[in-house]
Formats: sequence, structure tokens, C-alpha cells
Amino acid sequence: MVLVLRGERRLTAGKAAVQVAHAAVMLVELARKRQAGAVDAWLSEGQKKIAVVAKDLEEMERLSRLARAKGLPTVLVEDAGFTEVPAGTKTVLGIGPGKAEEVDSVTGNLPLL
Amino acid sequence: MVLVLRGERRLTAGKAAVQVAHAAVMLVELARKRQAGAVDAWLSEGQKKIAVVAKDLEEMERLSRLARAKGLPTVLVEDAGFTEVPAGTKTVLGIGPGKAEEVDSVTGNLPLL
Repeated sequence: MVLVLRGERRLTAGKAAVQVAHAAVMLVELARKRQAGAVDAWLSEGQKKIAVVAKDLEEMERLSRLARAKGLPTVLVEDAGFTEVPAGTKTVLGIGPGKAEEVDSVTGNLPLL
Repeated sequence: MVLVLRGERRLTAGKAAVQVAHAAVMLVELARKRQAGAVDAWLSEGQKKIAVVAKDLEEMERLSRLARAKGLPTVLVEDAGFTEVPAGTKTVLGIGPGKAEEVDSVTGNLPLL
């Protein structure tokens, strides 16, 4: 599972952590409906996650389309806007769980958060 | 849902985000086995989460015991130790989802991450 934040809109550490966690929970819910066995396997293997940074919203949306085209579970977190950013701001793209080589083909070149 | 990090062992923003997300996913898995309806309600209301900081491991473990005594879903994330901290290091205490007043009675006085 890869969680992609936007580099042009930096959040505090706490806000970033919560948005990443929203994406992870949404992905598990989504993926369980499609491939419950794959989710259980991922959980039993330690639920590997990586947080990375895309350049900006445009790159995040491009990666989202790419992940969907490859059939990977994909979510975009929109913030409710109570704190640091306006309501509806896209904060995190979540991808996976999925095969490492498929996920890496979408996000493998992004720097770590 | 409240995610409690340890103030005496600061992690990078990326590491903190991933550990918080581990806790959130573990809590949803745990809570769903006990009260599936409460989890679905929490998800449909925007899966509210807060990341806060305890002073140290001792305070984190005290809060964990307190949350368990109140019957709240409670998890302690132990890191696999591949990157910033030794294997088995307790990184995040997760509590909830639960009634706001019950969760707040455990963690309401902790500063935000």
C-alpha cells in the first residue's frame, strides 16, 4: 500500500498522519469488497505501507488514473475542511494493497515523505 | 478514534504517518469483530481521527490500560524495525472508535501531534 501526499500543500505532521490513516482505512474497506483474501494476506504480512510525495495535485491525479487503469484499489481522500485546508481539498491518494511490482510501476519513483 | 504517539521518541513525518495508519487499520479490524454497526456508523460519519502525543512509553502504557478498562477498542503498534527504530518498539497506541466522552476521558488532555 502506498499513500501519496501533495508536495505543494504541506500539512503538519499530525494532519498528514490522520489523512494517511483515512486513506489506509478507505483502501482496506474498498479492497475487502473486491479481494478479501488479498487483504487478509496483506494484513497477516504486517500491512506494509509507504508514504511518499507527489509534486502537486496534477501529478497526484495522473497517478490516480494510472493506478485505476492497472486495476489497483485506489482512493482519493478529500478533507472535511475543519482545520488546515478548505473543504474538499484532495490531500492523499491511496493505492493498494497490490503486487509490489504493480504498485511500484505507479509510484516507485516518488520520494519518501 | 485517537492515535497516541510517544513524545520521547520522535519519528519522521512519514514514519509517524505510516505507524498511525497501521493503528487505524488494526482498530477497524478489531472493532468490526466486536461492534460492526459502530464501525460502519463511524465510517459513514467521516471516520474522525485525532493524532496526539503522550510524554513517553510509560504514559502510553498507562493510557492503554485505562482505555481497556473502559472497554474501548485498543491496539499497540509494534514496529517491525526495518528503518528508524529497533524491532518491537511500541510506536502508537490506538483507541476507538468509541463515544467521544469515553475516548476523551482517556486522552482528552494530550497535546495534538
